[in-house]
Amino acid sequence: MKFSVIITLKKDVLDPQGKVVQNTLVNMGMSNLKSIRQGKHFEIEVDENDQSTAERKVDMMCKKLLVNLIIEDYKIYKI
Amino acid sequence: MKFSVIITLKKDVLDPQGKVVQNTLVNMGMSNLKSIRQGKHFEIEVDENDQSTAERKVDMMCKKLLVNLIIEDYKIYKI
Repeated sequence: MKFSVIITLKKDVLDPQGKVVQNTLVNMGMSNLKSIRQGKHFEIEVDENDQSTAERKVDMMCKKLLVNLIIEDYKIYKI
Repeated sequence: MKFSVIITLKKDVLDPQGKVVQNTLVNMGMSNLKSIRQGKHFEIEVDENDQSTAERKVDMMCKKLLVNLIIEDYKIYKI
């Protein structure tokens, strides 16, 4: 069972890397760009048939290692 | 108009960072983990009302700066 995990910075946390990308795009002539924020993505494959069990495992991985809950939010999608 | 862009390594490209995360999770006792691959995520806000024009702009940003098309794939979602 495959899951896609998207990790983003919480909205009040500054994102200097995203800011640099934004400035670069604007300098390249991309007008109309309002904002861009960078995050992480994990594609996780779990050997488990029950969806809710699998989701719980992925959630535990996020909480224990992948996500810094102080500054980051995360979402899990089944793919 | 907001878009979510997910950038992943092509399937034949090695992902050493993902491998380290995978080994760490296994060492932490997460069995049933089959594979994990790391990627990038961008949340892009474009000041544009027409969806197809906005999507074309985001696609151009990906092609010109955000994605290394030799080793990476990308997907654009409207959010």
